[in-house]
Amino acid sequence: MGDHGSEALFECLIRLGDNTLILGHRLGEWCGHAPALEEDIALANTALDLMGQTRHWLTLAGEVEGKGRSEDDLAMLRDVWDFRNVLLVEQPNRDYGHTIMRQFLFDHYHLLMLRGLSESTNERVAEIAIKSVKEVTYHAERTADLVMALGDGTDESHQRMQEALDRLYPYVGEMFETDAVDEAMAEAGIAPLPGDLRADFDAQLEAILTEATLTKPTDPFAHKGGRTGFRHTEHLGHLLSSMQWLQRAYPGAQW
Amino acid sequence: MGDHGSEALFECLIRLGDNTLILGHRLGEWCGHAPALEEDIALANTALDLMGQTRHWLTLAGEVEGKGRSEDDLAMLRDVWDFRNVLLVEQPNRDYGHTIMRQFLFDHYHLLMLRGLSESTNERVAEIAIKSVKEVTYHAERTADLVMALGDGTDESHQRMQEALDRLYPYVGEMFETDAVDEAMAEAGIAPLPGDLRADFDAQLEAILTEATLTKPTDPFAHKGGRTGFRHTEHLGHLLSSMQWLQRAYPGAQW
Repeated sequence: MGDHGSEALFECLIRLGDNTLILGHRLGEWCGHAPALEEDIALANTALDLMGQTRHWLTLAGEVEGKGRSEDDLAMLRDVWDFRNVLLVEQPNRDYGHTIMRQFLFDHYHLLMLRGLSESTNERVAEIAIKSVKEVTYHAERTADLVMALGDGTDESHQRMQEALDRLYPYVGEMFETDAVDEAMAEAGIAPLPGDLRADFDAQLEAILTEATLTKPTDPFAHKGGRTGFRHTEHLGHLLSSMQWLQRAYPGAQW
Repeated sequence: MGDHGSEALFECLIRLGDNTLILGHRLGEWCGHAPALEEDIALANTALDLMGQTRHWLTLAGEVEGKGRSEDDLAMLRDVWDFRNVLLVEQPNRDYGHTIMRQFLFDHYHLLMLRGLSESTNERVAEIAIKSVKEVTYHAERTADLVMALGDGTDESHQRMQEALDRLYPYVGEMFETDAVDEAMAEAGIAPLPGDLRADFDAQLEAILTEATLTKPTDPFAHKGGRTGFRHTEHLGHLLSSMQWLQRAYPGAQW
């Protein structure tokens, strides 16, 4: 690939790495606060998986960019307008139902994306994806189980899960947006077109939500702007000011 | 005063400036979100008064220290362990009742302290205090009125104000603590002993809370550690990471 191709690959890689970074950080916010010890540990484990994946994606992104930026530079020294995560993952934790619904919606997209990436013509990309698929398969199973248990649970748990779905569903569409970067990646056989994953996602969502006795919103409106960097929600800036505090206050600090 | 005296004066000044800085920032968080337009503007005005006072205290503190630190350096480039505000002012806004109760408790302490400082042997200190007294007299009147109106209002407003008082009262005691710095300031005639202000504060509190039909907690326990820098609550670090974000991310940035 020429320079233009490596720019698109860089963009593709930080989209992947920023999704897992930001969602991993959000899950980390629950650490020590989750409603049950088992859940606390499960969330922390998921967060660690996502952080591990982040390291792979951002390290590779730095190499592809060729400007000497490390995983830490990319994670800790970019500002909000340079982040390329989807808006879904930067949404705040709110109650446990929201956290699980956000994770459920992301996991099922994530798994489909990683399965596609496992067949990437780019060996490094394929390697990272194959390793990640194992972890994310488990994440997706766990959140599907939780969504069914809580949706078809008590009146209150049902109501909270429905509220979470209503609030978060407008952030689903962005994950399946397709732009020039995605087209370049698909043409080069590096990554699947996000739009091509939508039918499988919808079918899985339908099956699990039915089991969970939850109603999918009918309004097709989708918030957009995260993965293109055009416009993030106000939540990302607050997340970054907390996440990046140490590296900003003590530049170049070493353990 | 010798070197030891100027160290104590510096400490005294950052205690004053950090109180107004942190409380001013907290009030600023309401900007555009207060429950009524009139209240939104009143809170923003109070915040601006406090920020103006902060500039005076921290500028003077920087001069007294003699290391060339400006008001901005002191506000934006110190870390949590170097802040000397009382724990009360760093407590989160929560609902409007909490915000008003926090302000009420601080205002009445603040006014007594500033009246004492108005007679300071240090001319600069006296000047700043005399100017501030006018502003804070109004703050204290306003929050006393609001505490009475909301305390003796509807069942819900009464309950919320009582909850706010119960939660915040344990942070009152710290404002009247007296340590070696306070003793040095009192001996030099620079500042009143905080402990000497307590009786007047208690009398005012009693009168206003009675009018407000609110019950003062009887437990004398007081959280401490803010004004000595020994231990802040976890809230301060989050506040600073937001407040200092720009200066940390863009060191030396100019308008």
